[in-house]
Amino acid sequence: MHDAGSATTGAAGTGRARYVYLGPEGTFTEAALRQVPGTEEAQCDPVGSVITALAEVRNGTADYAVVPIENSVEGGVTATLDDIAADENLQIRREILVPISFVLVGRRQLELGEIQTVSTHTHGWAQVRNWAAAHIPQAEFVPGNSTAGAARGLLDDSTTYDAAVCAPLVAEQTGLPVLASAIEDTAGAVTRFVLVSRPGTVPAPTGSDKTTVVVPLPEDHPGALMDILDQFSTRGINLSRIESRPTGAGLGSYFFSIDFEGHVAEERVKAALAALYRMIPGIRFLGSYPRADKLKYSIPAHTRDAAYRAGQEWVAAIMER
Amino acid sequence: MHDAGSATTGAAGTGRARYVYLGPEGTFTEAALRQVPGTEEAQCDPVGSVITALAEVRNGTADYAVVPIENSVEGGVTATLDDIAADENLQIRREILVPISFVLVGRRQLELGEIQTVSTHTHGWAQVRNWAAAHIPQAEFVPGNSTAGAARGLLDDSTTYDAAVCAPLVAEQTGLPVLASAIEDTAGAVTRFVLVSRPGTVPAPTGSDKTTVVVPLPEDHPGALMDILDQFSTRGINLSRIESRPTGAGLGSYFFSIDFEGHVAEERVKAALAALYRMIPGIRFLGSYPRADKLKYSIPAHTRDAAYRAGQEWVAAIMER
Amino acid sequence: MHDAGSATTGAAGTGRARYVYLGPEGTFTEAALRQVPGTEEAQCDPVGSVITALAEVRNGTADYAVVPIENSVEGGVTATLDDIAADENLQIRREILVPISFVLVGRRQLELGEIQTVSTHTHGWAQVRNWAAAHIPQAEFVPGNSTAGAARGLLDDSTTYDAAVCAPLVAEQTGLPVLASAIEDTAGAVTRFVLVSRPGTVPAPTGSDKTTVVVPLPEDHPGALMDILDQFSTRGINLSRIESRPTGAGLGSYFFSIDFEGHVAEERVKAALAALYRMIPGIRFLGSYPRADKLKYSIPAHTRDAAYRAGQEWVAAIMER
Amino acid sequence: MHDAGSATTGAAGTGRARYVYLGPEGTFTEAALRQVPGTEEAQCDPVGSVITALAEVRNGTADYAVVPIENSVEGGVTATLDDIAADENLQIRREILVPISFVLVGRRQLELGEIQTVSTHTHGWAQVRNWAAAHIPQAEFVPGNSTAGAARGLLDDSTTYDAAVCAPLVAEQTGLPVLASAIEDTAGAVTRFVLVSRPGTVPAPTGSDKTTVVVPLPEDHPGALMDILDQFSTRGINLSRIESRPTGAGLGSYFFSIDFEGHVAEERVKAALAALYRMIPGIRFLGSYPRADKLKYSIPAHTRDAAYRAGQEWVAAIMER
Repeated sequence: MHDAGSATTGAAGTGRARYVYLGPEGTFTEAALRQVPGTEEAQCDPVGSVITALAEVRNGTADYAVVPIENSVEGGVTATLDDIAADENLQIRREILVPISFVLVGRRQLELGEIQTVSTHTHGWAQVRNWAAAHIPQAEFVPGNSTAGAARGLLDDSTTYDAAVCAPLVAEQTGLPVLASAIEDTAGAVTRFVLVSRPGTVPAPTGSDKTTVVVPLPEDHPGALMDILDQFSTRGINLSRIESRPTGAGLGSYFFSIDFEGHVAEERVKAALAALYRMIPGIRFLGSYPRADKLKYSIPAHTRDAAYRAGQEWVAAIMER
Repeated sequence: MHDAGSATTGAAGTGRARYVYLGPEGTFTEAALRQVPGTEEAQCDPVGSVITALAEVRNGTADYAVVPIENSVEGGVTATLDDIAADENLQIRREILVPISFVLVGRRQLELGEIQTVSTHTHGWAQVRNWAAAHIPQAEFVPGNSTAGAARGLLDDSTTYDAAVCAPLVAEQTGLPVLASAIEDTAGAVTRFVLVSRPGTVPAPTGSDKTTVVVPLPEDHPGALMDILDQFSTRGINLSRIESRPTGAGLGSYFFSIDFEGHVAEERVKAALAALYRMIPGIRFLGSYPRADKLKYSIPAHTRDAAYRAGQEWVAAIMER
Repeated sequence: MHDAGSATTGAAGTGRARYVYLGPEGTFTEAALRQVPGTEEAQCDPVGSVITALAEVRNGTADYAVVPIENSVEGGVTATLDDIAADENLQIRREILVPISFVLVGRRQLELGEIQTVSTHTHGWAQVRNWAAAHIPQAEFVPGNSTAGAARGLLDDSTTYDAAVCAPLVAEQTGLPVLASAIEDTAGAVTRFVLVSRPGTVPAPTGSDKTTVVVPLPEDHPGALMDILDQFSTRGINLSRIESRPTGAGLGSYFFSIDFEGHVAEERVKAALAALYRMIPGIRFLGSYPRADKLKYSIPAHTRDAAYRAGQEWVAAIMER
Repeated sequence: MHDAGSATTGAAGTGRARYVYLGPEGTFTEAALRQVPGTEEAQCDPVGSVITALAEVRNGTADYAVVPIENSVEGGVTATLDDIAADENLQIRREILVPISFVLVGRRQLELGEIQTVSTHTHGWAQVRNWAAAHIPQAEFVPGNSTAGAARGLLDDSTTYDAAVCAPLVAEQTGLPVLASAIEDTAGAVTRFVLVSRPGTVPAPTGSDKTTVVVPLPEDHPGALMDILDQFSTRGINLSRIESRPTGAGLGSYFFSIDFEGHVAEERVKAALAALYRMIPGIRFLGSYPRADKLKYSIPAHTRDAAYRAGQEWVAAIMER
């Protein structure tokens, strides 16, 4: 059993829990990490890649990893989907939503018209392109390894560009002058992160939960997807995300990464998972955890736990008479 | 508990089991009864209607009833479907198939050309009409209350017709001269009967079983039929019969009488029944019993009991870690 | 082409249209007939059975028949379902709903306590049984051939019972004293009738229509029902009635009589019918006609005619480029 | 209209058609291009990225592009899926399968034990890792931009590694010494490429065709995927590939890239496409084209063109009577 609260036996070897996250410091991933209760006292270390972060949890040198899983500014999403699906040695314990907003920081206080060169991660640049075209059309884009790394590069003489696009957090952490705020082209964008540990107890159901599974699609039978989806719909379970990923085993070999509403402690979810397992024994359970948006979903009366129990009792009574 | 073998406490009050069947003697229903093991030593009484036969079982004056349930020559099928569905005080223990073949018996040995009038049950007449048109075109049809009754009428002077169409059994029993055999227009016709008792232990599964349920259709929602059928198909369960009957409660109020392959002791059947109960608590279980044709059906691997247990264990292991 | 308004070439041979209906006069079927516009000037004749009524239309001795099709007080419903499904020589042109209310009429003005015997049709008696048990518990029931026939029997000395249960219409027509009104046990009961002609032009769509089809279930494949229903649900078409009937061709041989919302002039209905025809060429179209309750149904935007046309145009544009 | 055979008005400006492909020369993409009839006389130019290749076709500077779409060794697959789905200005005209086999080429003739450093594309390295661990465990991996580029690097002094892993084609083209052949870890691997043009006439159906569509998933309604799949299954159409891709418009916003069996000239395909368009007007048709494996698929009788026509005629006859 691995308990999320077992900080005293932390991988940090200091009695503190150790968290790793996709770095460098100041990225949106760190902002996600900061939302997790208990991280103030924990040891929190940035690492160079999603693969590394998850490997540290697998081999026990870290207790937890925070990695992006959907629509990341810094990339890494497919790496997370693929790596987390590779075995059953990881479990999602929590999802975290981070609003994506960008600031423009300068090497020094500058007028926008003075900026000749600007650096950031390519994905980040894509999200401020319209603003840049309107406000700093003269500026040339210099690709950086991360949004935070581009900003930190302004702190020393190893780089020569004038400004960087980064998360508000890194501006706070570095004290670099903010030349413009909220410069993202699309307001309201959000990236979704997950907190991952080794498999252990499943967080208690809250009435507003999600469950993530990985389901390999039987080879040469893409129509099987319909049978998979039917196991959810016939039990009144809504899907909130479904994505295919190639398994690497050849043309037409995919797995589906699926998030759905509900918790493995609920009868309808147990029934759906058991049904999927019967069809596709390679299915992997990656965790049940509270929804970050705390949105309540309505469960049809006939798929609530009480209904399941009533149905089982009715059948049992037939068998026992 | 009501055990089919409890002949020593029979309703006959003689230590023998008492069977009632849709009479009179010599009909296809008696032929069905004779197929049931143990009826040689039992008390077997014809009764005047399906309703009466089932009422005797309900109130305990009979142990068993044999009644037609599908495609009867003597009628009574809708009466059976409706009456058996009216409460949960009856259980189907066995199905019996009887090949439908007719003979023409005479008051005395006659040439076909001599026959002026012929009697039988209307439904029976309908099944030999072509033969009659070809071989006894001159004969006038006199409706009778049953095929056997028409034949027995030839034994005394209370009737005046020359011949009757009846089951081979009544010819044997009465010794009336057989003027023609196998005169049915459709070769291979079969009527299906059921052996009914009060609710009790379910006959053990044989690997070739049927289960009968009655499912009221939620009012004003005929599309619900699709949800009902889905519970079977999603678990690989084939239906062998589905019939609607009005409930009498008003326009659009129906129940469905459904036979499907499988036994309530099988996990997939338990799961389907429990799922139906959740949706439609008014469902009634009318029995699991061996198929008369002993036809083996193939159960998809992922819906066999072993697969169900494996699925449940997988989910349980998630909950217990 | 057979036009419902072609009264001048009526089968009555008098230039008037001829209607037949399940008699005798004064039944609920005549009440249904009276709702049909144009029947005041037409020749309207009661006939002895549903079979006879439909045969007269088939062979041209009548233009129209009015027969019960759902929940009749006088029986005849299964006869209608079976006979109308037997070939494609009939078409439903209209549905008619008649509220079922009963009156008790007497041979003369009587106190309820004076009634010793009461007659009506068995189905009718079933619908006033509770009232009778409470108000005329002393009265013995005498089965009659029809509700109207039982009432008319009070007009002469051929019968001896004291009272009859019948439709309000027959009380009006005969002038018999009404001893009690609205004595039906279930308030709000309704019987549904249909107006049938030989096949001809389909009544124009009104936006609130029904269509009736007969679909034989492919033998030995009861699961096929699911495929049939899927053709409706995938096109957003609601069913309002679905009933099975045995074809008489042997065990497991059924057809389904289905009413659904919509008119054959609508694209989604055309598509569903064509799809059913592809699967089951034995399907029969029995008519599209206005709903008697004039209830509007909502058609999902993507299954409206405009959506169908847009989809077809999109595909056509691909083919033509 | 854009005809695949219109070489005389080629974008090359020389009367010859111009093909671009994901370079450099000698990659598996060039091997795919060489399978396309007519490319011997055409102008064929490698370009630096999938995006560039498709842009050249869009703006008319090339007639055709060959790009990987499934399981590429050199990457580029998601770029292809995303870019090709971005508008309706491209059409898939052909699919091409290339068996993936690798050779090890040396700067000179070397024993395997002498190799200290080896270069190739990262994806390529992943596919020979086991072979390398067994046969050249001492060799250090040097990442290259492409398999072909790594091999060509051996031709001059700008690089210092000893050997490279590449496609057999580049070994032929360069004459570099082949130190080992068929060194791929997984035998039988295949990459799938597509030949893309601007929209034009659709290649004629061959009886063994595929169609590719892009279907945006209605936001906040992942269950809609079931409705989409149902449009195929209800018409007996098998899917051969289904992949999700984020649209970039926010969490939960996906499109599905779907290949299915059949040609837009077939009635069942027309019907499925029109049905999808009704539900999801943002659907994009990306082409119908012959299957590379020429595998015949069986079309259920009731979904063949003749059945569609029969169904339409039956409905038309109802309307015209």
